Amino acid sequence: MKTMNLPHVVIVGAGFGGLETAQRLRNAPAKITLIDRQNYHLFQPLLYQVAIAGLVPSQIAYPLRTIFRKQKNLTFQMGEVTSIDFDGRYVRSNGSVIAYDYLVLAVGGQTNFFGLNAVEENGFQLKSIEDATGTRNHLLRMFERASREVDPDIRKALLTFVVVGGGPTGVETAGALAELITHVMTKDYPQMDLREVRVLLLEATGTVMTAYPDELRKATMKLLEDKNVEILLNTRLTDYNGRRITLADGKHIDAYTLIWTAGVRSAEITDRLGVQQAAAGRVRVGPTLQLSEHPEVFVIGDAAYVEDKKGQPLPMLATVAQQQARTAARNIQHILRGEKLDPFHYKDPGLLATIGRNAAVARIWGLSFSGFIAWVIWVGLHIFRLIGFRNRLVVLINWAWDYFFYDNQVRLITRE
Amino acid sequence: MKTMNLPHVVIVGAGFGGLETAQRLRNAPAKITLIDRQNYHLFQPLLYQVAIAGLVPSQIAYPLRTIFRKQKNLTFQMGEVTSIDFDGRYVRSNGSVIAYDYLVLAVGGQTNFFGLNAVEENGFQLKSIEDATGTRNHLLRMFERASREVDPDIRKALLTFVVVGGGPTGVETAGALAELITHVMTKDYPQMDLREVRVLLLEATGTVMTAYPDELRKATMKLLEDKNVEILLNTRLTDYNGRRITLADGKHIDAYTLIWTAGVRSAEITDRLGVQQAAAGRVRVGPTLQLSEHPEVFVIGDAAYVEDKKGQPLPMLATVAQQQARTAARNIQHILRGEKLDPFHYKDPGLLATIGRNAAVARIWGLSFSGFIAWVIWVGLHIFRLIGFRNRLVVLINWAWDYFFYDNQVRLITRE
Repeated sequence: MKTMNLPHVVIVGAGFGGLETAQRLRNAPAKITLIDRQNYHLFQPLLYQVAIAGLVPSQIAYPLRTIFRKQKNLTFQMGEVTSIDFDGRYVRSNGSVIAYDYLVLAVGGQTNFFGLNAVEENGFQLKSIEDATGTRNHLLRMFERASREVDPDIRKALLTFVVVGGGPTGVETAGALAELITHVMTKDYPQMDLREVRVLLLEATGTVMTAYPDELRKATMKLLEDKNVEILLNTRLTDYNGRRITLADGKHIDAYTLIWTAGVRSAEITDRLGVQQAAAGRVRVGPTLQLSEHPEVFVIGDAAYVEDKKGQPLPMLATVAQQQARTAARNIQHILRGEKLDPFHYKDPGLLATIGRNAAVARIWGLSFSGFIAWVIWVGLHIFRLIGFRNRLVVLINWAWDYFFYDNQVRLITRE
Repeated sequence: MKTMNLPHVVIVGAGFGGLETAQRLRNAPAKITLIDRQNYHLFQPLLYQVAIAGLVPSQIAYPLRTIFRKQKNLTFQMGEVTSIDFDGRYVRSNGSVIAYDYLVLAVGGQTNFFGLNAVEENGFQLKSIEDATGTRNHLLRMFERASREVDPDIRKALLTFVVVGGGPTGVETAGALAELITHVMTKDYPQMDLREVRVLLLEATGTVMTAYPDELRKATMKLLEDKNVEILLNTRLTDYNGRRITLADGKHIDAYTLIWTAGVRSAEITDRLGVQQAAAGRVRVGPTLQLSEHPEVFVIGDAAYVEDKKGQPLPMLATVAQQQARTAARNIQHILRGEKLDPFHYKDPGLLATIGRNAAVARIWGLSFSGFIAWVIWVGLHIFRLIGFRNRLVVLINWAWDYFFYDNQVRLITRE
């Protein structure tokens, strides 16, 4: 019955931040409850690979109960947290009330459509497994429909794939999609003229990969263009009806596929907490990651607004969430022991994005890499970071296979 | 332009029968069009493994365009055949008309609920990938709900899993489900008392595995009971509302899960062809597998009614469909060459069913096997029969892993 008197730490969200916090508290004198809408942790950086039929969901998702089998002080609960009462110190989930002594909000982010409802309705996004398999089914269906479409204008629109957003997700998706077409679809559709296929990358600003140094931006553009991705800079869209994109300058692009990667914001629940929010809905926290009025509440990851030394908001990246998780877990233990809390300092581990087979860009140890070397670094790092030995092995086999045989295994169109 | 004058063979359905027919016609002087609702061939015998989270869909489904990449005389079209005009010699698919000189109907089977609409609505079946992933999501959700349910009666009903039908599919599903619970769920839900879990196998007749010799029926029952499956023979159900099963004798079983494997019939389209049908809606064909009034039409597999030497209808099995496919393909080539047609004779390759880890029953080469030896035969044969080398490798790794670590990898609850 000793555990009954232990303080109760509730962690909301099992993304990179929530998962790391829970694991770091494994030896803490506390009861931990981890709550997530899903029963799995999702390795989001590879979600676009599911969308382009390169990986299956189970290769990038791992059941939370299995991850925490050996952590005796933790209980997992699958459920959606619908409200939080900071004064009463409880959260509501699955219609019941869960009281906490300490709360870690790691609720993550969601796609930001900036009010473009038509794009939200008719376009695709890449945040959940269902988004990704939905996108995969749609992409493959476009090829099936095009293979029997006689009207050349409709066929071209079916085969025009527009990715919006020149950040890492957009670049990775456009590059992988272009490779799927060049190396796989040409073999699966020998009767079709796949020169009709277009992959477009739309970016509202004057450059792709804003966070990267100039030489890597140029390398990215070059690598994408080598793969026949058409990059349209300074191009902003205003409307999309599922068939036709309307641009800000009044021009049109006929395309049955639009994948939106141009914005992220904190999860919607952060709007309903009655707390101070900054850009993209993120919750303002103090240097120790606590809410100023509720020091028993920590906010980390995409949902937290924290500035770097130059006063810039930290990006919504797994590495930021994981580092903040370590600080939050440490600070909870400091409180339990009556010690002074640590402020959070972000240590930038570098930048890394892939543009397909043999091609990536990286900024590590103060050096810029592009092309094959960067790609090898990317593959190694991602396989290593994937949770679960078997998943690593299966992903490795898949990638090795794709590498040697230019193939993608999972071109299944499933019904939703 | 030479191909324009070649006869056109249309094959409807890319299950075991349609696939085999198409492959056997690879060197025939004909244009072949293969039509299927899905873009993949499904290895149905392992579908129950997807339902119990042992395999992922891509391990038992293989894209048809990839299978037929090298077969130059074949075109694949994804689409649903909605009607067939035997006099006009054309099929309708995707709203367009496809004319044929020869037609092979390999449309397969579907679940037969024998008019029990409530069971069809509230129960699960195992015919498509979507059925299987839907069942998987539901099974896993029951454990999540039970883990936080305080009412003991509701919790018991959440944890009561009823499989209906004592044929191979029912036996395999019940056995695999029992093992999932004993070896995996006990680890994932350490706080739950999984002795509350029940797996029931309901069978309307007095025995399981009707087609098997008596000693293997007994072995099956023993192996299932060893795994804590409760077998209820001579038990017929009359109603199910999603919570409670009503039996013919008026008794009730409270269960949130019912998986129906108790009946198969030919695909619904066979009812709309205006042809002679036999039991389970199957189409009567002559000894050469042709329709008597339309000798250019062949019907094979689950959709065809063919009797064995004893006057018994051949079972709806992959081996029957594949053997009939070979005869149909050969007979089409006989017609093209003006030769005499071959009658179909079924060569029984034996019987084989698994009841979980280390346990199966088999009737091969006139001998009965049960237990571990039968299981080794089963594993070897199924891995060999799976299409695609990589799939075989991945399935092998998964099974080896499960075998050594008593684990199932894919316990993901995805939204539908």
